[in-house]
Amino acid sequence: MTFLRNSWYIAAWSNEVTEQPLGRRILDIPIVLYRALNDSAVALFGVCPHRFAPLRLGRLIGDAIECPYHGLRFDRYGKCVLNPHGRGARPAALNIKHFPLVERHGACWIWMGDAERADEASVPPLDFIDDIGGRTVVRGHIHSNAYYELLTDNIMDLGHVDFVHSQSLGSPSFATARAEVRVSRDGNTIRCDRWMPDDLQSPMLETVYERRGRVDAWGDVTWYPAAVMKLSVGMTAVGAPRQEGRDIPSAHIMTPETKGSTHYFWASARDFKVGDDEYSRQFLEAFTNAFVNEDMRMVMAQQEEIGSADLNALKPALLSTDAGPVQVRRALTQLIAAEREAGPA
Amino acid sequence: MTFLRNSWYIAAWSNEVTEQPLGRRILDIPIVLYRALNDSAVALFGVCPHRFAPLRLGRLIGDAIECPYHGLRFDRYGKCVLNPHGRGARPAALNIKHFPLVERHGACWIWMGDAERADEASVPPLDFIDDIGGRTVVRGHIHSNAYYELLTDNIMDLGHVDFVHSQSLGSPSFATARAEVRVSRDGNTIRCDRWMPDDLQSPMLETVYERRGRVDAWGDVTWYPAAVMKLSVGMTAVGAPRQEGRDIPSAHIMTPETKGSTHYFWASARDFKVGDDEYSRQFLEAFTNAFVNEDMRMVMAQQEEIGSADLNALKPALLSTDAGPVQVRRALTQLIAAEREAGPA
Amino acid sequence: MTFLRNSWYIAAWSNEVTEQPLGRRILDIPIVLYRALNDSAVALFGVCPHRFAPLRLGRLIGDAIECPYHGLRFDRYGKCVLNPHGRGARPAALNIKHFPLVERHGACWIWMGDAERADEASVPPLDFIDDIGGRTVVRGHIHSNAYYELLTDNIMDLGHVDFVHSQSLGSPSFATARAEVRVSRDGNTIRCDRWMPDDLQSPMLETVYERRGRVDAWGDVTWYPAAVMKLSVGMTAVGAPRQEGRDIPSAHIMTPETKGSTHYFWASARDFKVGDDEYSRQFLEAFTNAFVNEDMRMVMAQQEEIGSADLNALKPALLSTDAGPVQVRRALTQLIAAEREAGPA
Repeated sequence: MTFLRNSWYIAAWSNEVTEQPLGRRILDIPIVLYRALNDSAVALFGVCPHRFAPLRLGRLIGDAIECPYHGLRFDRYGKCVLNPHGRGARPAALNIKHFPLVERHGACWIWMGDAERADEASVPPLDFIDDIGGRTVVRGHIHSNAYYELLTDNIMDLGHVDFVHSQSLGSPSFATARAEVRVSRDGNTIRCDRWMPDDLQSPMLETVYERRGRVDAWGDVTWYPAAVMKLSVGMTAVGAPRQEGRDIPSAHIMTPETKGSTHYFWASARDFKVGDDEYSRQFLEAFTNAFVNEDMRMVMAQQEEIGSADLNALKPALLSTDAGPVQVRRALTQLIAAEREAGPA
Repeated sequence: MTFLRNSWYIAAWSNEVTEQPLGRRILDIPIVLYRALNDSAVALFGVCPHRFAPLRLGRLIGDAIECPYHGLRFDRYGKCVLNPHGRGARPAALNIKHFPLVERHGACWIWMGDAERADEASVPPLDFIDDIGGRTVVRGHIHSNAYYELLTDNIMDLGHVDFVHSQSLGSPSFATARAEVRVSRDGNTIRCDRWMPDDLQSPMLETVYERRGRVDAWGDVTWYPAAVMKLSVGMTAVGAPRQEGRDIPSAHIMTPETKGSTHYFWASARDFKVGDDEYSRQFLEAFTNAFVNEDMRMVMAQQEEIGSADLNALKPALLSTDAGPVQVRRALTQLIAAEREAGPA
Repeated sequence: MTFLRNSWYIAAWSNEVTEQPLGRRILDIPIVLYRALNDSAVALFGVCPHRFAPLRLGRLIGDAIECPYHGLRFDRYGKCVLNPHGRGARPAALNIKHFPLVERHGACWIWMGDAERADEASVPPLDFIDDIGGRTVVRGHIHSNAYYELLTDNIMDLGHVDFVHSQSLGSPSFATARAEVRVSRDGNTIRCDRWMPDDLQSPMLETVYERRGRVDAWGDVTWYPAAVMKLSVGMTAVGAPRQEGRDIPSAHIMTPETKGSTHYFWASARDFKVGDDEYSRQFLEAFTNAFVNEDMRMVMAQQEEIGSADLNALKPALLSTDAGPVQVRRALTQLIAAEREAGPA
C-alpha cells in the first residue's frame, strides 16, 4: 500500500481554505493550508521542525504562519522568517517544506511528490465543475474510514448501485448490474462506460431526470490518476439521441488521508434549475445521504472485514463488473512502480 | 492461544436466528446465521468472496442470502446461485463455506472444524435446559471483552463466589471458599464438585431456595469441551438427602468471539414456580445483574491487567481452589495439541 | 524510552490516599495505594499474584487489603496473611511486592527501583510547599496523554509562555521569549533561570503580582531527577531588589504513568492573601485552566504528531531556548545509562 506521490490531489475545496489555518493529513503527511494576503492558497508541511507542534493550531500574521508552541514564523514558502528566542538565529533547519498548489475547478490541488515534476497542465480536466454561467455546481466533502482504492473501486464499478442503493438510486430491474460494460484505456486515462438500453431506472432518478418508465440510460466513468473520476449519469427516451435526454456529470475525487482513511470530495454540475438554491439544497442532501448512508456504510463495513490487508492479497473472486476497477488498480500499480524505479528527482 | 476447532459451539440461542441475517464472529471467523424456509438454521461464512462485504448486511430471498454490495446470492449450502452481473458466470470461487449446524437444547450449535468430523452425537448433553413440561427455562446472552478461558475458570472455580458476589450470591461465612472440592475426569468430561455441609448461604440464595439458616449446600460443575458447563447449585436441610432440598441447574457456555472477547450464553432451569413469568423476569434480572456487574466486571478487569498475554505465561500462583480450572485447561491443551497433530481431515 | 527506576516519584498527593484503595499506574507498573490504621500510606504491587485481579477493586480489612476476586488478604508489607480457600496454605508465591513510600511535602513519594537503594534523604527538597504557617499552598493533579519528558521540556523551556499562553500568562512584548537564559548544573540538579529586565508582563500576571507596567521579572526553574521541578516566577519594580517584589514558587512534578501518559502534579505556594480560600479557589481555577487548556492541549497535540517515536530520534531543530530541556534530557539519559550498567542491587 504505497501511495503515488507525483500526482495532483485535492487537498480542499477552495472555499475551505481561508485565513484560518486548516490542518489536513494527505498521503499520511500532515499539511497545513491557508490563504495568503494576495488570495493565493498555501500548502506547507503541517508540523514545526522545532518541537513538532501542529501548525494548524497557529495563527496567521500577514502571510506568515506562527507556530502555536514557541512562536517561530514561516512565510508562505516555508522559510522561517522569525525566531523570537534569544538572538533570533534562523538556521536552514528551521525551514519547512512547501508544497506546490494549484487552484482549479473550485479546488486546491496539492502535489505531494518532487516539486520539479509538478506540472500544472497535468491537473485532471474537471472543467465541467467550474463555476461558470449556465450551470449550478454543488460540492460535498465526506471523511471515510476506508482505504481510497476501495472508494475508487466503488465508483469504477457501478454494478453495486442496484444493491447498495436499492432504496435510492438502484434500478428495480437491476439494469445497472446487467448493463453492457466497455472499458478502454488511453495513456493513463481509463474509461468505464455502462449502457442500459430500454430499461427501468429508480424512482429517485426518474424524478431527477424528469423522465418515467423505460429509458435508454448510461453511467460513464473516466478515471485520472491517482483517484480522480468524472462520472456522467444520464437517460434519454428509448432510441433517442443522448443529447435529447439529460446528463448530469459529477466528480468523485479520493484523497488518501492515511492507509485507513480518505477524504472523499465530490461535486455535481447541472444545466437545469440553474441557480435554484432550494433545489441545490435538496439535491446535495439526497446525494450526501446516498453516499454517506449507503456507499460509505458499505465500504467501511468492507474495510472492517479486510482489516489492514491489501484487497488483492486476499484474492478476491472477480466478476465481469470488475473490469473497470481491475484496469484502474493495474494502471495505478504500474505508475507507483515506475515512480519507485525513477527514484527521487 | 489456539482455538479448538473440532468442537460444537453455541453460535446463538435458537430464538436469535430468524429470517433477518445475524452476523456473529466465532473463533475469530465471521459467520452469518439465518433461518431457511423449512425453519432450519443456517450458518455460512459471513463475508462475500467477491469484495468481502459482510453478508449480515444482506437480505434473504427465499432460502438464499443476497450480498448487500453487488447482489451475489448464496443458497443455504453456500453455493452461489445468482450472479446478476454481465452473463452471470458462477465459477466455484464464488461459493462460500457452509458450517455444520445442529439445533438442540434451544440453541444453534456450530461446528467450526472439519465438516467430516462433525458428529451430532457429541453435542454436549444439556437436556436439562430443553423446553419441556414441568420446568421453566430462562436464557441470557452476555458479550464480554475477555478471553473465554478466563470465563471458564470463573465457573470452574466457584471459590470466587463469596468475594465477587459478596453483595448477592456470596456466603457470609465464606462457605463456598471453604467447601470440600472434588475434581474428577471421565474421558473429556471434567467434574468439579463443591460440598458445603452445615453452613450459611447468602440471603439471595435463601430466598431463591426458600430455606433459611444453616444448610447442606453444593455447587457442582461438569465441563465439556471446549467451554460448555453445567452447574448445579442446591441446598437441603442439614443432614437431609439432596432430593428433599432444591437444586437449580444452569448452563454456562463460552463461545470465543476473538482472542479478546467471548459470547457468554447462559440458561437456568427450575422445577418450581413453573410458568410464573413475573418470577422468571425477576430471576433473569437478578442473575444477569450478578453475571454482568459482578463476574464480567471482575473478569474484564483481570483481562485488562493480563493484556494479550496467556494467563499461564504469567505464572499465576495456584490455590487449592484452582483444581477445577487447572484440570480443564490441561484437558483443553491436550485436545488442541491432538487436533494440531492430526492435521486437517 | 526507558524509565529511571531508582528515583522518587510522587504517586499521589497525601490527601488522595485514604482507606479506600487507589489504583495508579506508575512507570507502567500497577500500584495500589492506601492508608493503614496507623495513618501511614502504603504502596503495593497492584495486582494479585493468583489470577491478576486489580487490588484497587478490593477492600481494606484492618491494615490488610483483600483481593476482590478470591479473597486473598495482603498486609501492608505485601505479605499474604489469609488464604480463605481449602486449608489456607500461603506459600511465598502469594506475597506481593511492597514499594518504599515516604510522605513529605504533602505528597506520597514512591521508590520504583531497588528497595535497598531507597534513601529518604534524596527526596527532592520541596519544602516550599509544606503546609506551614505564613503561607497558603494549592495543589492540582492533571492526567495527560503525553510522555513525561515532553511535559518536563515544557517547564524547562518557558520560552513557550508568550505563545501557548498568549491569552493568559504570556507577555505582550514577548519578554519571556527574549529573556536572558542561564543554565547551570550542580550534580544532578539543573537550574534554568530567565531574567526579563524592564519589560511588560501579562495582564493576568499584573493582577496576581499587583504591579502594572514595566517591571524586572524572572522565571527560574530547578530540576531534580527524574521529573521534579521548582519554578519561581516573580517580578519587582525596575531596578529594585527581588525581595521588594513578589515571588510565587510552584512545583511541577511529572510521574510517568505509561510510555504515552503522565500524572502531572503541581502545587503553588504564596505568602500573600494567606488563608483566603476564595482567592485560592480562583487561583487554582485560573492556573488549572492555563495548564489544561493551554499547556496540555499543546503538548498532547505535539505528542499526536510525534506518535510513539522518541523526540530525539526525530532530530528536532534546536533553538537557544532549548538549553534547559537539552541539559535535562542529557542528565536523565546519563542517569538511566548508569542505572542500567549498575544492574540490579
